[in-house]
Amino acid sequence: MIKAGIVGGTGYTGVELLRLLAQHPNIQLVTITSRKEAGMAVADMFPSLRGAVDIKFESPDTAPLKQCDVVFFATPNGVAMQQTRELLDAGVRVIDLAADFRIKDVAEWEKWYGMTHACPELVAEAVYGLPEMNREAIRSARLVANPGCYPTAVQLGFMPLLEAGLVDPAYLVADAKSGVSGAGRKAEVHTLFPEAADNFKAYGVAGHRHLPEISQGLRLMSGRQVGLTFVPHLTPLIRGIHATLYARLSGAADLQELYETRYRSEPFVDVLPSGSHPETRSVRSANLCRIAVHRPQGGDTVVVLSVIDNLVKGAAGQAVQNCNLMFGFPETMGLTQLPVMP
Amino acid sequence: MIKAGIVGGTGYTGVELLRLLAQHPNIQLVTITSRKEAGMAVADMFPSLRGAVDIKFESPDTAPLKQCDVVFFATPNGVAMQQTRELLDAGVRVIDLAADFRIKDVAEWEKWYGMTHACPELVAEAVYGLPEMNREAIRSARLVANPGCYPTAVQLGFMPLLEAGLVDPAYLVADAKSGVSGAGRKAEVHTLFPEAADNFKAYGVAGHRHLPEISQGLRLMSGRQVGLTFVPHLTPLIRGIHATLYARLSGAADLQELYETRYRSEPFVDVLPSGSHPETRSVRSANLCRIAVHRPQGGDTVVVLSVIDNLVKGAAGQAVQNCNLMFGFPETMGLTQLPVMP
Amino acid sequence: MIKAGIVGGTGYTGVELLRLLAQHPNIQLVTITSRKEAGMAVADMFPSLRGAVDIKFESPDTAPLKQCDVVFFATPNGVAMQQTRELLDAGVRVIDLAADFRIKDVAEWEKWYGMTHACPELVAEAVYGLPEMNREAIRSARLVANPGCYPTAVQLGFMPLLEAGLVDPAYLVADAKSGVSGAGRKAEVHTLFPEAADNFKAYGVAGHRHLPEISQGLRLMSGRQVGLTFVPHLTPLIRGIHATLYARLSGAADLQELYETRYRSEPFVDVLPSGSHPETRSVRSANLCRIAVHRPQGGDTVVVLSVIDNLVKGAAGQAVQNCNLMFGFPETMGLTQLPVMP
Amino acid sequence: MIKAGIVGGTGYTGVELLRLLAQHPNIQLVTITSRKEAGMAVADMFPSLRGAVDIKFESPDTAPLKQCDVVFFATPNGVAMQQTRELLDAGVRVIDLAADFRIKDVAEWEKWYGMTHACPELVAEAVYGLPEMNREAIRSARLVANPGCYPTAVQLGFMPLLEAGLVDPAYLVADAKSGVSGAGRKAEVHTLFPEAADNFKAYGVAGHRHLPEISQGLRLMSGRQVGLTFVPHLTPLIRGIHATLYARLSGAADLQELYETRYRSEPFVDVLPSGSHPETRSVRSANLCRIAVHRPQGGDTVVVLSVIDNLVKGAAGQAVQNCNLMFGFPETMGLTQLPVMP
Repeated sequence: MIKAGIVGGTGYTGVELLRLLAQHPNIQLVTITSRKEAGMAVADMFPSLRGAVDIKFESPDTAPLKQCDVVFFATPNGVAMQQTRELLDAGVRVIDLAADFRIKDVAEWEKWYGMTHACPELVAEAVYGLPEMNREAIRSARLVANPGCYPTAVQLGFMPLLEAGLVDPAYLVADAKSGVSGAGRKAEVHTLFPEAADNFKAYGVAGHRHLPEISQGLRLMSGRQVGLTFVPHLTPLIRGIHATLYARLSGAADLQELYETRYRSEPFVDVLPSGSHPETRSVRSANLCRIAVHRPQGGDTVVVLSVIDNLVKGAAGQAVQNCNLMFGFPETMGLTQLPVMP
Repeated sequence: MIKAGIVGGTGYTGVELLRLLAQHPNIQLVTITSRKEAGMAVADMFPSLRGAVDIKFESPDTAPLKQCDVVFFATPNGVAMQQTRELLDAGVRVIDLAADFRIKDVAEWEKWYGMTHACPELVAEAVYGLPEMNREAIRSARLVANPGCYPTAVQLGFMPLLEAGLVDPAYLVADAKSGVSGAGRKAEVHTLFPEAADNFKAYGVAGHRHLPEISQGLRLMSGRQVGLTFVPHLTPLIRGIHATLYARLSGAADLQELYETRYRSEPFVDVLPSGSHPETRSVRSANLCRIAVHRPQGGDTVVVLSVIDNLVKGAAGQAVQNCNLMFGFPETMGLTQLPVMP
Repeated sequence: MIKAGIVGGTGYTGVELLRLLAQHPNIQLVTITSRKEAGMAVADMFPSLRGAVDIKFESPDTAPLKQCDVVFFATPNGVAMQQTRELLDAGVRVIDLAADFRIKDVAEWEKWYGMTHACPELVAEAVYGLPEMNREAIRSARLVANPGCYPTAVQLGFMPLLEAGLVDPAYLVADAKSGVSGAGRKAEVHTLFPEAADNFKAYGVAGHRHLPEISQGLRLMSGRQVGLTFVPHLTPLIRGIHATLYARLSGAADLQELYETRYRSEPFVDVLPSGSHPETRSVRSANLCRIAVHRPQGGDTVVVLSVIDNLVKGAAGQAVQNCNLMFGFPETMGLTQLPVMP
Repeated sequence: MIKAGIVGGTGYTGVELLRLLAQHPNIQLVTITSRKEAGMAVADMFPSLRGAVDIKFESPDTAPLKQCDVVFFATPNGVAMQQTRELLDAGVRVIDLAADFRIKDVAEWEKWYGMTHACPELVAEAVYGLPEMNREAIRSARLVANPGCYPTAVQLGFMPLLEAGLVDPAYLVADAKSGVSGAGRKAEVHTLFPEAADNFKAYGVAGHRHLPEISQGLRLMSGRQVGLTFVPHLTPLIRGIHATLYARLSGAADLQELYETRYRSEPFVDVLPSGSHPETRSVRSANLCRIAVHRPQGGDTVVVLSVIDNLVKGAAGQAVQNCNLMFGFPETMGLTQLPVMP
């Protein structure tokens, strides 16, 4: 049984982490911080956790984070980088669910995130927490940068093609659709129910922060520069990401077999039978990515469909998966709940 | 480990039962029938169950139902009563999630359900499967009539008041709102997404089949005739029932304490603190009923708010709870997953 | 052609008023104010109005409100009362869509709204703008208090019964369900899409500000004190209110005929045939109230179902209807668009 | 005032046509047919039309279709082609909202629609009813093939680029998302609320019937063969299509100016300012297509965002627009209602 802390647990990523940790047999949540809600019982804010989580939010200044074995940051970007050094020095391992340690090129990070990085030296050390790509490095990592939600769906979708060098990396398209929980639990007008329900729109076409993160990953897979057009869309779902990926084939292969082989031993990636169309609800509330690969009309454009729950495989679930790897637990421990459908 | 079968597993109640049984440590699902889908893998129809359920639908004529310890009927009304006698005679215990055995007055049942009952003698034997009311009888039952979704929410909401004789039973109002999954997984126009989304309506005001079931239960609680006005509404939720109950106080009591005391040792009923408003999502996908009791403006009208997930505490979850009782398992076994929120 | 101004046009009531006025043949919108958005084109904030509304938000300090024939306040409570005296003195007629002038008992108003009234003397003059109740007084009013959304649905539903003295006014129940736009276009967490979608809850059971407004109206209809239990619920609709009303009959009558007779000449109240269940979408985007009256099981409880679009008959549409009356236009002018369904 | 008939008015396209025609000053609906609902009042099936439409559904065998000036077919594919010859011979003009006359290559049509065409000679005569492409031909047409919903959004989005020869027509991607009303008002499981709500999926990736229709149009615009990958998605919207289009630039141009110039005099196409992201709700219930054009990161991939209401500009509204052209009415007559938002 290890001791875990959560910094910033009042957002959707935080409450999902609470749900998963409360059901994890080997992790005990000992503290959760919120500057604003310090003193409030977690279950008063989130009644769905009544009877399962009985601690209170604590001030970040007094919470016993250094007594933890692992601390999860479920904070806005720019918070984890302020506190990670101190925690690592105290022997605590850190999993950041925000973006502070995801991009290796610090200048690039600073450009997209509009702030100066507080600890560039840790960026080099941090391991990008996509287990299907970096499993061994994660096992021994002190600091894991948990991937973004779009980057998880898009990278898992493109990975077999790029690793095999089967598509032209210069012209990749990722048309991605996200549920509204991806925008966070912040008081904003554009994500109010009457704004987001019965409505569909693209956003950030000129440039979204997940673009450099995805490009970095795709570059590593293909070993070459990539040209990616990434268009995210806001969709009237609570949870779920559906990435529709387009690439031009530059070689011949049995795509179905390629995907099945690549992911055969992955516990959380499921390649659907040929001709399938994965639904976001088929992974709702579960730590899963389901993928289908198509070659419409037998042409040379490949279409990959990749779905995840943005709060689970796209955030809290993947963080727990990384934690399992870091502490030598079975990778699926605490992550075996089935998707809730309908 | 006991062996379980499901008759009629292609509806929402059936797929929810599949989800719950697949995660139950002491129940093994050995067969599931569907006349129409015989031969199809369950996971092909419900991809959310890929990797967790690997059996196929079987014809009801050949499925080894008599080799089961328990058979769940997740069928339309009128099916279970045709097959229950034979199963009981073979030593199989039966839990009917439909309405065949819920109403003790067979003539009343036949009036509301528009058919002749096939085995009236079993109606008398059947135990109404509301554990909070009939726990001991359920333990030794061969045949359990699993309550309807509305009846579960309404009866649990009124129970403390009626048992204590604190309200006038002649004037009870149950204004109930249900998610669309309550209407079943049937191809019908009125529950299509474009009909039911962004829309709200009452239905069945002149008389709904759950009215006699609820009235029977309330009568048993109060020991008197009851006058109930029950108005169900179709709500753009996937899952969830919210019952708003109104009664006139005929005596004095600390209502909050009354409810807390009545449900203190119930594992699946949660009385919220005074002044609360339970949300349906706080029980989503979990076997829970959350209740709040109010006395607005200090007047003599009591308002009770009662929420459940219609597919779990209102159907499949309660069936598993009953099964646990019938086989001497811990009552909460396999039912401890936390609600999924948001 | 009269000149109209809108104060505070960035909320849902404001944008709906913009939509309706842009299609009204006899009203010209000459100014709209927003302190925060001054200088921004209305159509930049609301692209649905591109090509139809080409003015900009103006500062309330410089907007030519006094040059208008009528000014609509689509502001938070407490704003209109600060500016109405000055406008009336300048010969401008005022329609307040907020609550400042709805409640005749100023002390009662101050208790529920938590502020001191700035012009109690105008409260007495103000006409409550429910045309089905006060048509003649509205025609000559300088100041109209446009009813709240819940109060419109509930009062129109109870009116025939109370006017006829057919029910016991001491025990009335209004179980009301509102779409989320009723909560306004404010940045708040509880109305975010991931909070309000697939969720249902009651709120304000202890006391909601629309309670005294409704009670005042019901008292006027019945000529007696009334005892009303009012429970509002938040529903995952964008628009729509469904009020389910319960009362105990104290006399005999043909209820269907009573309602049809009472509303026969009302252009915006539609009594459905006996046995009907009105849907909120049947009035979506239209200035209509549809009503059905039931007497379940032939008992002595009457159930009335009343639906409106909270932004139209419950706000902006009713304001235009009042404006038509005040300026001698046909009552239906500019309000004849059909409901949008599905 | 011309006389109009509708064949098959019980679907979403039909009821939308009813809404629009009831508000059209120069068109009188004299008959509507439905074999199944003959004798039923239209307003009984669609209460939103109470007071506005007072005719009954008639049997197609007896309805006075030949006395009409124009007949709209809002029928499943394959119906209009059986009756069009007879109507044309009687001097009636025909607008088919289904697909019978959209594809000039009859063999291609027969392959995709799986039936033998009943009147191939009329296919040649039929005019494809996309006014922005074929306005003059529509004016004098006897028979108009009203475009499909996806084809309308995709063709209007690509048109300026292809006409100008600025992109490589061999590699076009149309990633399109549709509301569920696009699937029609048919009793089917996959479009039930509990299936389609809070869910997102692609479908028909291997080949959708709108693919040949779109390809035909794009080929005409570009004067060259086109290679189009078209992926439709089912989205939890009632109404709305959002097409996200990708193409590779082969020449230099000011794209914003190109689009603004091309559509400057189009009454129903609105090019948004540079950098915009059109929302589906900004055209809800209105006969409009709003478009934005982007060139992300200054690269050579152009991204076009195109939104319509699938039932209006994608079906019934465009049919009325075509009818206006055919009978010499102002093109916008009866189509000026503003979008309903929120």
